[in-house]
Amino acid sequence: MLPDRHAFTRQIPDGDNRERLVCGDCGFINYVNPKIVVGAVVTWEGRFLLCRRAIEPRRGYWTIPAGYLEEHETTEAGARREALEEACAEIELEGLLGVYNVPRISQVQLIYRATLRAPEFGAGEESLEAALFDWADIPWKELAFPSVIWALNHHREVDGHAIFAPRTNPHGQTGNY
Amino acid sequence: MLPDRHAFTRQIPDGDNRERLVCGDCGFINYVNPKIVVGAVVTWEGRFLLCRRAIEPRRGYWTIPAGYLEEHETTEAGARREALEEACAEIELEGLLGVYNVPRISQVQLIYRATLRAPEFGAGEESLEAALFDWADIPWKELAFPSVIWALNHHREVDGHAIFAPRTNPHGQTGNY
Repeated sequence: MLPDRHAFTRQIPDGDNRERLVCGDCGFINYVNPKIVVGAVVTWEGRFLLCRRAIEPRRGYWTIPAGYLEEHETTEAGARREALEEACAEIELEGLLGVYNVPRISQVQLIYRATLRAPEFGAGEESLEAALFDWADIPWKELAFPSVIWALNHHREVDGHAIFAPRTNPHGQTGNY
Repeated sequence: MLPDRHAFTRQIPDGDNRERLVCGDCGFINYVNPKIVVGAVVTWEGRFLLCRRAIEPRRGYWTIPAGYLEEHETTEAGARREALEEACAEIELEGLLGVYNVPRISQVQLIYRATLRAPEFGAGEESLEAALFDWADIPWKELAFPSVIWALNHHREVDGHAIFAPRTNPHGQTGNY
């Protein structure tokens, strides 16, 4: 954890091979690491739970419940927490659906397949609304991020399969939009 | 990216629900996130590639090639880079073997199944030596971390399976040692 005050400069620490921000006073190295997003494609009786974002980026667009993993949290607990925070939904995880990389913004997304525990959900603080969509009614042109599209399609691919390998970025796609 | 100088104090930012280090001068919020480790169980003709650590923690103990994912790197590229850096080995990834959580230290490990491209390897800068082990000769009592044991056992579980779900922490195990 960072102390209260630091005077950072860019240096390559001993034994390292990349520039890092190093404190000239105490030697603390501020390693900046990729961030982990956890989330889930959540269904109830074949319909898909989506939330309309109340925050930037992509305010007003639809997404699956997902967000940054917190410190000291497991990826499974994080995916369940995000569903609760964004869609007031209690979910049951049923396998890792996808591992998506967005290297431009140093993001790794772990998206699970999940079902609602009960047909109860609502708009959390970061959502304008939450709703269940039939596949044919998914608002494809109003989805917030490429990985939301990937995850929904991958969910369909593995439908009916108890055992499957998690999917990755579609060929050549980097997650930028 | 952090500017050169900051005066951090602990605050709960607007719209957040946890304390973060916030700069009183510029408002920069230093979100501290879990770290991603990428690595691989690498085999060649049924034997397992292990490296003996030249650095702390667990110097002198054996591990699979693995390390922190770098900024702007995909998890697959990171796993290949670690094999090259620690074992001078070029590897071919063959599926995601495990997603292990070590919440005490906020670490998420993505471990792939992989094979050597050729029977060529050696000790990288962070390794004292690298070697291929028959299953029966793996130095179980000299392995560096619990997740190394998990990954090796999970590799054996999925042996012969082209399609498998990635494994997770064995029941009740948190990755501490």
